[in-house]
Amino acid sequence: MKSFIEYMAVELHLEDPKSDYPNICAGTDRYAMYKVGPVLSVSHGMGMPSISIMLHELFKLLHHANCTDVTILRIGTSGGIGLESGTVVITKQSVDATFMPKFEQVILGKTVVRSTDLDTDLAEKLLQCSKELKQFHTVIADTMCTMDFYEGQARLDGAFCSYTEKDKQDYLAKAYASGVRNIEMESLVFAAMCKLSGLKAAVVCVTLLDRQKGDQVSDSHEVLHNLELRPQILVGYFIKSQLGSSGKI
Amino acid sequence: MKSFIEYMAVELHLEDPKSDYPNICAGTDRYAMYKVGPVLSVSHGMGMPSISIMLHELFKLLHHANCTDVTILRIGTSGGIGLESGTVVITKQSVDATFMPKFEQVILGKTVVRSTDLDTDLAEKLLQCSKELKQFHTVIADTMCTMDFYEGQARLDGAFCSYTEKDKQDYLAKAYASGVRNIEMESLVFAAMCKLSGLKAAVVCVTLLDRQKGDQVSDSHEVLHNLELRPQILVGYFIKSQLGSSGKI
Repeated sequence: MKSFIEYMAVELHLEDPKSDYPNICAGTDRYAMYKVGPVLSVSHGMGMPSISIMLHELFKLLHHANCTDVTILRIGTSGGIGLESGTVVITKQSVDATFMPKFEQVILGKTVVRSTDLDTDLAEKLLQCSKELKQFHTVIADTMCTMDFYEGQARLDGAFCSYTEKDKQDYLAKAYASGVRNIEMESLVFAAMCKLSGLKAAVVCVTLLDRQKGDQVSDSHEVLHNLELRPQILVGYFIKSQLGSSGKI
Repeated sequence: MKSFIEYMAVELHLEDPKSDYPNICAGTDRYAMYKVGPVLSVSHGMGMPSISIMLHELFKLLHHANCTDVTILRIGTSGGIGLESGTVVITKQSVDATFMPKFEQVILGKTVVRSTDLDTDLAEKLLQCSKELKQFHTVIADTMCTMDFYEGQARLDGAFCSYTEKDKQDYLAKAYASGVRNIEMESLVFAAMCKLSGLKAAVVCVTLLDRQKGDQVSDSHEVLHNLELRPQILVGYFIKSQLGSSGKI
């Protein structure tokens, strides 16, 4: 998250060689937060419970800071389905492990179903940015969000595995047929909470492998690091263009 | 996790003034891992998806390292119900937000229900250790594990809240009546995965507040830090006594 703020400081010409960017949330180990100009960058840990804690507290912060016209973007990595590794996926709809666009939130022991709609215009604007950048392939597609990285994503290499390679391939084929092109672990609650808050939101994740071809990333650390930068480059370009057109920088 | 290993090094007389304890998993940002003698200490992030990733990878590591007679202990903090803050709770059963002792794992889009039984003998041994230590009050009771820190635990101070103080109190009273004395976010999948692996497991969490009296901790940082050390002290005493009696140190 700090590296994203350092990157944005350069992109927005806000860098100050004398200044460091402190972790604003250094008093907690829940997450780290950095800021430059109008850009806030926050870590969220792995999985929906972890990101939901951060979002509750971020929304309260934004409210008390009287922030308006907020856009919230999750950037990260994911497993792809039927895509060349390195493809960037802008999420059209976040769906659960049964390919349904809904998030089930348990409140007082009762399940409440929440919508996971994301902002269509924002997704299109991000896709347009990628076309202008011409650095990597980007698609708009559905993202599957799971509670578990191994059994929940049909991996064969976890500590437990009660299914076959064929079962895995059948499941991934069904996901593909339903429109899913990548899998991660946070977008469902992210989309639900942003929707409930009325914030414009998007999910931008690069795929590190094609899950139909395997379960483990095989690229070198250097290649992976370069792939991981792609969502940052795309979102950085978008932020710069938005702030420029709004006269905020 | 590093501080626990530094603490155990002193307790087990294995400290070396010249040596530091490196993070064995420095190559990943998923979690941190430290080791001294036969004790491994691993961070797990917040929530069930996060701890499940670590456990899958830890179990594979223990298997390939030919480790035998492994005991696995989760130590952490929690919200209490009807207990004075600072009470240590050794989990009897981990239950979900409907007070049922079951973990629902989604595999290939289908829900599989797993048992969350923990080791009764181990819990009793830990309670006995607390009696010998005589430093703080410890109980064996049920622990509720939730997917969400705010709405999932009936807090009134999240970004969203669709219920009243009375609804919250009614829910917590029901939890208390069912045997629940504390609430956290990892024990359900921890218990299920340890059970499936045949590992002896226990959950030892200190309560930082009584949720029937409020939603936010009010103690000073210094007091909270001292409370947070209690599970470490109890588990450290237990490990020392076990290793001593087995002739391993």
